Amino acid sequence: MNKNSSNTMALAPTTSNKRETVCIFGTGDFGRALGHKMIQSGYPVVYGSRSTQISNLIPKDAEVLSHAEAAQKAAIIIIAIQRQHYNFLTPLAEVLHGKVLVDISNNLKLNQYPESNAEYLAQLLPGSKVVKAFNTVSAWALQSGTLDASRQVFVCGDDVEAKQMVMDIVRALGLTPLDKGSLLAAQEIENYPLQLFPMWKFPFFLSLGLTAFFFVYCVVLDIVYTYIYENNDFSFFIAITIPNRVCPVMALILLALVYLPGIFAAIIQLYRGTKYRRFPDWLDRWMLCRKQLGLIALAFASLHVVFTLVSPLRAFVRWRTNRGIISQALNNQTEPLDHTNAWLSDSYLALGILGYFLFVLLGITSLPSVSNNVNWREFRFVQSKLGYLALILCTAHTMVYGGTWFLSPSAYKWYLPNIYILSLIIPCAVLVVKFVLVFPCVDKPLTRIRQGWERNPKYSE
Amino acid sequence: MNKNSSNTMALAPTTSNKRETVCIFGTGDFGRALGHKMIQSGYPVVYGSRSTQISNLIPKDAEVLSHAEAAQKAAIIIIAIQRQHYNFLTPLAEVLHGKVLVDISNNLKLNQYPESNAEYLAQLLPGSKVVKAFNTVSAWALQSGTLDASRQVFVCGDDVEAKQMVMDIVRALGLTPLDKGSLLAAQEIENYPLQLFPMWKFPFFLSLGLTAFFFVYCVVLDIVYTYIYENNDFSFFIAITIPNRVCPVMALILLALVYLPGIFAAIIQLYRGTKYRRFPDWLDRWMLCRKQLGLIALAFASLHVVFTLVSPLRAFVRWRTNRGIISQALNNQTEPLDHTNAWLSDSYLALGILGYFLFVLLGITSLPSVSNNVNWREFRFVQSKLGYLALILCTAHTMVYGGTWFLSPSAYKWYLPNIYILSLIIPCAVLVVKFVLVFPCVDKPLTRIRQGWERNPKYSE
Amino acid sequence: MNKNSSNTMALAPTTSNKRETVCIFGTGDFGRALGHKMIQSGYPVVYGSRSTQISNLIPKDAEVLSHAEAAQKAAIIIIAIQRQHYNFLTPLAEVLHGKVLVDISNNLKLNQYPESNAEYLAQLLPGSKVVKAFNTVSAWALQSGTLDASRQVFVCGDDVEAKQMVMDIVRALGLTPLDKGSLLAAQEIENYPLQLFPMWKFPFFLSLGLTAFFFVYCVVLDIVYTYIYENNDFSFFIAITIPNRVCPVMALILLALVYLPGIFAAIIQLYRGTKYRRFPDWLDRWMLCRKQLGLIALAFASLHVVFTLVSPLRAFVRWRTNRGIISQALNNQTEPLDHTNAWLSDSYLALGILGYFLFVLLGITSLPSVSNNVNWREFRFVQSKLGYLALILCTAHTMVYGGTWFLSPSAYKWYLPNIYILSLIIPCAVLVVKFVLVFPCVDKPLTRIRQGWERNPKYSE
Repeated sequence: MNKNSSNTMALAPTTSNKRETVCIFGTGDFGRALGHKMIQSGYPVVYGSRSTQISNLIPKDAEVLSHAEAAQKAAIIIIAIQRQHYNFLTPLAEVLHGKVLVDISNNLKLNQYPESNAEYLAQLLPGSKVVKAFNTVSAWALQSGTLDASRQVFVCGDDVEAKQMVMDIVRALGLTPLDKGSLLAAQEIENYPLQLFPMWKFPFFLSLGLTAFFFVYCVVLDIVYTYIYENNDFSFFIAITIPNRVCPVMALILLALVYLPGIFAAIIQLYRGTKYRRFPDWLDRWMLCRKQLGLIALAFASLHVVFTLVSPLRAFVRWRTNRGIISQALNNQTEPLDHTNAWLSDSYLALGILGYFLFVLLGITSLPSVSNNVNWREFRFVQSKLGYLALILCTAHTMVYGGTWFLSPSAYKWYLPNIYILSLIIPCAVLVVKFVLVFPCVDKPLTRIRQGWERNPKYSE
Repeated sequence: MNKNSSNTMALAPTTSNKRETVCIFGTGDFGRALGHKMIQSGYPVVYGSRSTQISNLIPKDAEVLSHAEAAQKAAIIIIAIQRQHYNFLTPLAEVLHGKVLVDISNNLKLNQYPESNAEYLAQLLPGSKVVKAFNTVSAWALQSGTLDASRQVFVCGDDVEAKQMVMDIVRALGLTPLDKGSLLAAQEIENYPLQLFPMWKFPFFLSLGLTAFFFVYCVVLDIVYTYIYENNDFSFFIAITIPNRVCPVMALILLALVYLPGIFAAIIQLYRGTKYRRFPDWLDRWMLCRKQLGLIALAFASLHVVFTLVSPLRAFVRWRTNRGIISQALNNQTEPLDHTNAWLSDSYLALGILGYFLFVLLGITSLPSVSNNVNWREFRFVQSKLGYLALILCTAHTMVYGGTWFLSPSAYKWYLPNIYILSLIIPCAVLVVKFVLVFPCVDKPLTRIRQGWERNPKYSE
Repeated sequence: MNKNSSNTMALAPTTSNKRETVCIFGTGDFGRALGHKMIQSGYPVVYGSRSTQISNLIPKDAEVLSHAEAAQKAAIIIIAIQRQHYNFLTPLAEVLHGKVLVDISNNLKLNQYPESNAEYLAQLLPGSKVVKAFNTVSAWALQSGTLDASRQVFVCGDDVEAKQMVMDIVRALGLTPLDKGSLLAAQEIENYPLQLFPMWKFPFFLSLGLTAFFFVYCVVLDIVYTYIYENNDFSFFIAITIPNRVCPVMALILLALVYLPGIFAAIIQLYRGTKYRRFPDWLDRWMLCRKQLGLIALAFASLHVVFTLVSPLRAFVRWRTNRGIISQALNNQTEPLDHTNAWLSDSYLALGILGYFLFVLLGITSLPSVSNNVNWREFRFVQSKLGYLALILCTAHTMVYGGTWFLSPSAYKWYLPNIYILSLIIPCAVLVVKFVLVFPCVDKPLTRIRQGWERNPKYSE
């Protein structure tokens, strides 16, 4: 959908000779990959190495010298060695004085050391200007030229000019530098590439667990029960019928779970009479993953929509429809239109469509580029007002779909409620409590508390 | 869909002691919220206040001093007081000389004062370096740590170094600073959080009005007429049938309204023979909300697609289908395939699908992150070429759907035309005029005018 | 979906008098458009021109002077003249000494000159500070105020302060400056507006060619064959039936083509025993357009989904269904449910839905704003793990859909295989080879090679 002009650059390296020499300490994988890429982009590269013999692994056009000699040739030195060997740089302090040292190291786990590698380097060599950069880029991607992931390179450092020089190199390699401020940000930058969707973990495993539970519940009630009592083999329900029962249930529950922590927060603040105390940790965490919960709910809702729309194509549904028509035809009768049924069927479909429509709108608004263009007031309007409207519509959709059938005893196989009834518990609870919170007598004190008023100042931290 | 590494930071505050002291003038809600957050991020905070007694509202770890004393302790002073009290800072001018003053104030309405608060502050204290920041962040969001809206903090100021210092604080709080240039941008930044979708207002109310009109029109023709003359109660048409008639009509009209102002602009330029005069105000405004009109049209088109796909699931449609089949079966006959009908049905569906496909493509291209990666030539190609193709396909879709039925007298209940005929007026007009404008004899002078040529230089401003 | 606060600014020009005078050399179209816009934004503008007579083309409020006089009035001079006339500036070198010169020129084709226009200007006038900017904005868009395309203005230059001054002007005009580093980036910036989706060309024409081939193939087998041997006119298949056969085939083949180059790269690296040699050019190019191939595949898959869902609405499908039911009814029989058929039908639908779901997820992740928020590890997880899962699901979907029918001789009209069989060749090949590559005995050496190990150092460049 977009095209990146630097891609073409990568193929047609600028051979301009104006670039300044860059020195790389260390001939490991990343040092070599970076050197290759820099030479391609027109930079003269000189390697600083203990042994100057391993030159066949090193890019052909690069020079290999001792550390001290190499450092003297360049204003920028890239430290492509591991943190535990940083000590050997201290004897070189004089040569490195005033030079820009680029720390590109990564750790093996989050917060491995008390201070970041870049800050450690800055402590070892106080006379040099340390800049953190390049650690978020993969050597393999640099080498193969296929940087289809993020081209962003986080850069931080205390010296503005040094940072500018490094950012210019980043741009020359076809990457996008992103200034993250002073060297204090180095820890965060070093942790960044180690993460694997940290905010998604809890929502993902919660959904997985709930999905598994509801799936088994449905298999028992719809397949096992039918097999035992009616001796019908409906095992093929596993493919579409049951997923299409589990998906809407999951979507509704997860959507309600997005709004539940806000309800809890309001109750806690009303009870405490102040907003100046931190919420319990679990609530904090929950509130921070509401977006992820909402997006997973949207995924389930989308699957539900497609599973539903696909039903006229299913062999089973066609067989069931045909059987109904043929039996009517054979009995020589035509049923009249059942108006109540037509109303119910059309309104639950319409409610569902509108609810899903709002849901998709919420999803689009949560795209980073869209939410960055929306101010706080607009964001609250969309996520709170439209979000609650979507929850109301989806809950109503489920209720109208159930109709009077929820209350009939035949819906309770083995005395277990249908999962649609289970799915309604949390959404209805959320909507009822929210309804109470909207009443002026409750809303007024809450608004005052959120504007900074305290009922009982002793509670304050 | 994305995860933000600073979220985890918010939960695990860095307790590094390297941060420099920050002074906050004012102990109101926002001052306290910002102080809390800064202390969490490792900044020593000192409050400047008239009375040093109200300390239980203030974060526990913060010091409270008189204004002058507090200001002396820090290089950065955050002015968390209202504009009307800025006067009291003038006696402190000497203490504040050379300090960075961060103006975080907001107004109650757009352009409330002739100059922005930050510029006013800079005039009062010419010896200080004023930076505008933080006004786009909500106190409640800072406090609760649930910054799921935009993390962007607009920063502007005339002193580059002062701006850098403030941007470092912004980053340390887990927010993203966005440099908006010199203090002249302060007015725009102060207006920003007061807006509620300003560009959407006109398109939204226009669509609302048109939708209401077409809805009533359809209710009268489809439900009231049928009830009176055929004594059939089709009130359930309100849920799906009528929305699915109004949605495509709205989508087509709004899509045509996206291209209509371009047509007007071309005609005006041809008539005037110059491009160096401003368009009338209404046309300017119209052109600026074309994107919003197009996105609303896309929303209606999407609803139309889902409403249409859902139709085989409707009780009414199934009843109607069954009745047709049973009557054929009872009459012992099988209708042969009507080839004309098959052609018409397949082609209006195919035209609609392709038109909608292009429409969605246009919508994706208008996402900020995609349109930022597209140059002017590419954007014009997509929005103009593909946009007109979408309009042609959608218009053809409606025409083929109507077929010969539009012309039959039975389509005119109460002598009123069907809404499909109404919906075709604007699109057809746009397409016809556009077709004329594409002719070389018209296109050539227009191109010359747009390249700066003037037929009649006296018209020039 | 977003709204841009600067839009409103464009309508309500700030008439603040604090802006510094800007000088524009050249009274061509772009010079005039930029002058208009600057005057609207509150800048005093003075034009430098050979003749001071053509004032009626020039904005009313602007002054027109000789080049030398105009240059003396401003610190920033915008060079709105063509590169071939840059020579005439050399006599002015003294007046322009220390001034900021903004090069806004564009060329007519990519890499027209050995060095960029901005670098050429800097060579001519070494005493001036040259900044490249504004060349990506269209004069027509500036003039009409309808900047609905990208508002980004790429800025580059060697002098940081000069760049800051130009970026402030860019912001004041309601545009977003983007710092692209030193003047070395000028070539890239000058090439940018000349491109028309360069990365899309190959994938687009490849898809077009394949689509045309498969379309004709289907027309021959489904329409011509049926017409000749069964004397049935199914020409209306062109509208939906055949597109819905071609789309899934294209989607599957293109998705496989996304993963094929990775397979080739692995084989080449295993064979060579090193990663330090560049891939052949065709492979490099192929790898760089994988994202585009994938997005086109997604477009085909989406069309396939809509074409499929729409089928119950087709006159032909309804006629065929009715005929089946009526013949059953007339024969007084009801077919029992075919369990195998129910299983097959439900599982190919479920596989297709899940495959498409993952496919859409991949598409969303490739949106620039989302992929920028994802680190390298996460991106590889999504694009590689989930991507292969999508490929497996879609291949299985096609295979189950084919069922035993692929093997029956009736599927081979004119001894030609059905296109579904053709479509399975590449995906199956990719999956089989990938399966081999995942085996530890193959995976281990490959991983070592990718970490920098070399089997045969002599191969190294």
